[in-house]
Amino acid sequence: MRTQVGIVGCGPAGLFLAHLLHRAGIESVILESRSRTEVEGTIRAGVLEHWLVEMMTAMGLGARMLREGHFHTGITLQWNRQRLHLDMEDLTGGRKVTVYAQHEVLKDLIAARLADGGAIHFGVSATAIHAVDTDRPFLTWRADGDGPEQRLDCDYIVGADGFHGPGRQAIPASRRTEYQKVYPFGWLGILARAPLSWPELIYANQGEGFALLSTRSPEIQRMYIQCDPADDITNWPDDRIWAQLEARLSTDDGWVLQRGEIFQKGIIPLRSFVCEPMQHGRLFLAGDAAHIVPPTGAKGLNLAVADAVVLARALEARYRDNRTERLDAYSATCLRRVWKGERFSWSMTTMLHRNPDDSPFEQRIHQAGLDLLRSSRAAATALAENYVGLPFED
Amino acid sequence: MRTQVGIVGCGPAGLFLAHLLHRAGIESVILESRSRTEVEGTIRAGVLEHWLVEMMTAMGLGARMLREGHFHTGITLQWNRQRLHLDMEDLTGGRKVTVYAQHEVLKDLIAARLADGGAIHFGVSATAIHAVDTDRPFLTWRADGDGPEQRLDCDYIVGADGFHGPGRQAIPASRRTEYQKVYPFGWLGILARAPLSWPELIYANQGEGFALLSTRSPEIQRMYIQCDPADDITNWPDDRIWAQLEARLSTDDGWVLQRGEIFQKGIIPLRSFVCEPMQHGRLFLAGDAAHIVPPTGAKGLNLAVADAVVLARALEARYRDNRTERLDAYSATCLRRVWKGERFSWSMTTMLHRNPDDSPFEQRIHQAGLDLLRSSRAAATALAENYVGLPFED
Repeated sequence: MRTQVGIVGCGPAGLFLAHLLHRAGIESVILESRSRTEVEGTIRAGVLEHWLVEMMTAMGLGARMLREGHFHTGITLQWNRQRLHLDMEDLTGGRKVTVYAQHEVLKDLIAARLADGGAIHFGVSATAIHAVDTDRPFLTWRADGDGPEQRLDCDYIVGADGFHGPGRQAIPASRRTEYQKVYPFGWLGILARAPLSWPELIYANQGEGFALLSTRSPEIQRMYIQCDPADDITNWPDDRIWAQLEARLSTDDGWVLQRGEIFQKGIIPLRSFVCEPMQHGRLFLAGDAAHIVPPTGAKGLNLAVADAVVLARALEARYRDNRTERLDAYSATCLRRVWKGERFSWSMTTMLHRNPDDSPFEQRIHQAGLDLLRSSRAAATALAENYVGLPFED
Repeated sequence: MRTQVGIVGCGPAGLFLAHLLHRAGIESVILESRSRTEVEGTIRAGVLEHWLVEMMTAMGLGARMLREGHFHTGITLQWNRQRLHLDMEDLTGGRKVTVYAQHEVLKDLIAARLADGGAIHFGVSATAIHAVDTDRPFLTWRADGDGPEQRLDCDYIVGADGFHGPGRQAIPASRRTEYQKVYPFGWLGILARAPLSWPELIYANQGEGFALLSTRSPEIQRMYIQCDPADDITNWPDDRIWAQLEARLSTDDGWVLQRGEIFQKGIIPLRSFVCEPMQHGRLFLAGDAAHIVPPTGAKGLNLAVADAVVLARALEARYRDNRTERLDAYSATCLRRVWKGERFSWSMTTMLHRNPDDSPFEQRIHQAGLDLLRSSRAAATALAENYVGLPFED
């Protein structure tokens, strides 16, 4: 088998890339180790930046998102039992975010890709990346555990296969630098059948630390609280979770958190990670394979799709005009945006969590960062610009 | 002896307060442990915020500053051998800073205060603060080491006596909280007889870390480099200093650092410090007695004078209208501004130094913070607003 671009991973980066390449007349094949059901059932983030919603709509992939997504023109920050509404639409000249879960985006993109005749191989195993420092790279895999080895010859290979996939490992360790920060706290997340408690997302740092009030639908709410990342979820009966959410989200004006049945709960760790460079020979990394952000600020999905946009443009210039400058600049172009996303995610995480390693001085500094948002339109604008999505610079 | 307001310390906070009170018809007496020559010869910071220059001019204290000071409508940041000019005047709607050394400000204010018939006792010893939690606080001191004890009865006492003075200690330890951060680097500062190398201040983080190119006059330049705070100045012969300044300030476009004779050099540690509250009974702290910032960002003098402005307004309301709300709110009002100044100074210090305790991830995050200033007008504006001076909020 042969294709122009072999893509490992059917997440946001791989799927958007396949769609963008298809629109440019470039062939691709996606290999994915999970089943389609697993891919479409894995619950992740769900805050889409302004440009991404515009792009999905322009690509004809936005119909269900526009129908079922929630448009948020502002966010609420909370500390010291007081709330601050940031009107992002006003601060950024009309931009907003859309709350639409990542797995719903994936469902829409997979259906559309298959309808276009696109090739996605789900449930493959033993995927391996070969000869990326030659002109003839190729992928091998098995369609099922015992099946024969398959081979796909490609012009280029894209590792869009997440943090644990083989993509990043195909760059020799001596040729890459990895930057990492592991935070001394995690998020305990719940899904609950409950009515909406507040019309927009609330990011709070109060009492024992961070809480996020988010929503999935008018009937289903998504909420998080900071916790010990090594804690066991069995230590968190529902009543304890509700009590902590109430302590961190309550105000002095009688606001009431709407409780409901918790039907899913779990604890995730928080980590920042960047691999430099994001390219080696004919292999290009995209999304979580190259960079992880903590969920505070909701940048993970958006950074992944931004990589796909940069890579699609570069491959288009290569195939249409036989120009490779953009491909050569791929890593540098992406990393400029990635590091700004890492900085924003780190800054939101730092400012909004109670870090046991922080001194009392540092805790006050973080609170002053929040206070400044109340008095400085420029500081509020800088946050809002990052939240709705920075402009592309290349 | 008796006065309305007894002020301990003849630095910026104490002197501005005495002037502001005099204009409101309120009597004060200043006690200062150093001689007038020492006070006027101690070289400190020298970047005045916009409002402070306007206030000095309105008070008739700005004539020499307007003649001899340097007006800076922008600053330059440098990293990776590239410079970024921040046009503060454009970003902040016309505000700027004035470079005029702190001891020159003090000379002007001391001369004007004495010309007004104001009482300043220099060279006093054994200053002690008494009975601040009663209605009749008083100060005692000796005019010289062997002289008789003097007593000054006051309505209110102001501790504007610096970090090491008796002011803060007069608040019982159980009634105050101290926040502190000691940085693992210091500044090696020089004064050199050399021509100007660049028309505005350059804050650089390059090579082994921080450098600041500043100016005292067209003939005298003030420069700093980050160094080990425990280092001995004898380890720094002039050639080593110039080589480090050149490494940290050089660019790819052939810019040349103008060398000259170094006639003063020394190493200072960097520290952040805040005491809460800034008031106890009839004692009010102002300036370094209550808060220290590292010099990055040049906020020390400006925060000290801001305290004096808040306190003068409060005392005026007390004496003119017999209203004490502003006096009661003094600490909270000042601390809102102080913590924003602490945050800005910490943020500039963090972003512009090579901290040996930082991980490679954190170093990249700081660089992304600089990169963001190049692409985001809002981020540049937020920095410029802090640099030229935040508005008063009370």
